[in-house]
Amino acid sequence: MTEKNRGWLLAKRPIGIVGREHFEWREEPVPSIGEGEFLVRNRWLSCDPAQRTWMEIDTYIPRLPLGEVMAAGSAGVVVQSKHPDFEVGELVSGAFGWQDYAVSDGSAFGGLVPPLKIPTGVDPPTALSLFGITGLTAYFGLLDVGEPKAGETVVVSGAAGGVGSIVCQIAKVKGCRVIGIVGGARKCRWVREELNADDAIDYKSEDLPIRLGETCPNGIDVFFDNVGGEVLDAALANLAVGARIALCGFVSGYSGIRRTAIGNLYNLILQRGTVRGFLVFDYLDRAMEAIGALAGWAGEGKIKNQIDVVEGLENAPDALRRLFTGENLGKQLVKIADE
Amino acid sequence: MTEKNRGWLLAKRPIGIVGREHFEWREEPVPSIGEGEFLVRNRWLSCDPAQRTWMEIDTYIPRLPLGEVMAAGSAGVVVQSKHPDFEVGELVSGAFGWQDYAVSDGSAFGGLVPPLKIPTGVDPPTALSLFGITGLTAYFGLLDVGEPKAGETVVVSGAAGGVGSIVCQIAKVKGCRVIGIVGGARKCRWVREELNADDAIDYKSEDLPIRLGETCPNGIDVFFDNVGGEVLDAALANLAVGARIALCGFVSGYSGIRRTAIGNLYNLILQRGTVRGFLVFDYLDRAMEAIGALAGWAGEGKIKNQIDVVEGLENAPDALRRLFTGENLGKQLVKIADE
Repeated sequence: MTEKNRGWLLAKRPIGIVGREHFEWREEPVPSIGEGEFLVRNRWLSCDPAQRTWMEIDTYIPRLPLGEVMAAGSAGVVVQSKHPDFEVGELVSGAFGWQDYAVSDGSAFGGLVPPLKIPTGVDPPTALSLFGITGLTAYFGLLDVGEPKAGETVVVSGAAGGVGSIVCQIAKVKGCRVIGIVGGARKCRWVREELNADDAIDYKSEDLPIRLGETCPNGIDVFFDNVGGEVLDAALANLAVGARIALCGFVSGYSGIRRTAIGNLYNLILQRGTVRGFLVFDYLDRAMEAIGALAGWAGEGKIKNQIDVVEGLENAPDALRRLFTGENLGKQLVKIADE
Repeated sequence: MTEKNRGWLLAKRPIGIVGREHFEWREEPVPSIGEGEFLVRNRWLSCDPAQRTWMEIDTYIPRLPLGEVMAAGSAGVVVQSKHPDFEVGELVSGAFGWQDYAVSDGSAFGGLVPPLKIPTGVDPPTALSLFGITGLTAYFGLLDVGEPKAGETVVVSGAAGGVGSIVCQIAKVKGCRVIGIVGGARKCRWVREELNADDAIDYKSEDLPIRLGETCPNGIDVFFDNVGGEVLDAALANLAVGARIALCGFVSGYSGIRRTAIGNLYNLILQRGTVRGFLVFDYLDRAMEAIGALAGWAGEGKIKNQIDVVEGLENAPDALRRLFTGENLGKQLVKIADE
């Protein structure tokens, strides 16, 4: 193989919003494989807010080492194999990182995410969004942590993002009133018109605590939170009795401003509310349940899978950055190779 | 009856720590009763942090009106009765307020706390502490919300207070390691020696986040929080996977500084932690279960019921203030009349 293996290395710990300056471009020969290994040609990269966190601090995985390929969920095709379970030509998803080619021995990234064959009939972008970590996060976070009941009011922050847009639609399937919190009028419109949310709030131009009071006159029963900080605080001020808050992400805090003044935790006592953090990795043994349900709803037209595509491996840092500047609509992906 | 009915009226909404300046002394004739009513001679008043909140804001009850008798849990004896269920000479507990005499028609304070006969053999101070709202709060908050398992590490803030001191002891009964957080060396000693806590931390003279790390090397499994604010934040930084936080009170916030910067909520995601607020009123239908268990443990010498008594109705404002200056050891009561 004479082609190069292009990639992005983690070069700097991010302070503030993540961007191109935190990575270093690398070109090297395409690696060769040993016994028990296979080579993947990456085609699509998944952009996830958690990547920003992996770059900075120890979490459920040790923080990423400087000088190594930036970690990311991805999907591609097996192009060489000395591994008994993976054959050349098979489509696979895994955490193959920001590079054209990756060698895998089939072990799980961080002990959490193993390489998986993408089922026939599923395209890689869908495998990385609705049927991937994104869809599973939405499914288990809303249903297992939030436990919405028909007729209840569900509020979703980051409602126009990858996870949030699926959460909104699952909540509608379950017969809930759904209010999306987003940044900007375009996303508001999209959440109302395309996701069929009952209402949407633009936190950038509207007074969030007041608008939550108006749109949730009986209080919030379930809050699915991707944002944290002031958005979480505003929701805490508007809880119904027995409210459940599913803490999925803290996008507001990932860019460094983590010590936001939270003033309304006391309301958890008055309203007997619950805040529960979760990680999708704890639910992976039930992945088939979620994928089956999501596929069913998608087939019935009840869930749309919106993806937002940036072209080119060279633009991966910009694509990741879009999550934190709020530019993406739906699931942010990077397409790095044609089929 | 020629005796006067002395009492304290709520005169001002508190800002900062509550004290004598927020109340007005009143003397009036002892009230007479109508059909279906009974007259109680108050003997003991219960001091509870929630009273500070009732004075300031609407909660599960509308905030207390200015110019009316300050609300408080209390215990006394029926001295006149035209009520079929209450006889002269019976000991009763209820929310009869900061006054010598109160008329009751048997209805529940705020729809929550009805007048109850104190069982034979239970003295009023015990009825207002271990077998009252205080003991029930400790019992249901720790066991139903915190769900501690034997061998787990339980941390209790306000550990030398009325609720906290009982929580520590129930956790020991359940086979947990118990760390108490208190203010001052005297309370540290008391929590270690009298409550048999495995360790105690003086948040005033020690670095709480660091000491929590030292005393809970495997993280906190259950945090029973009476304090909120920085104490809660320090606990959030030291959670074990699957930690449960029972939010009982927010004493740090009751004196006005409610918008404390909470920086570690994100850790709820990493550790899959749960924060749950509760009100004891939701558990009153199971009061007998709790009282039975608490009485059993007290009988076996496993739970000591520590009370802290201020003498005289005229000193009720000072007694309440003690909860917020941290002067009380165990349950704060006011004795206002002899038997």
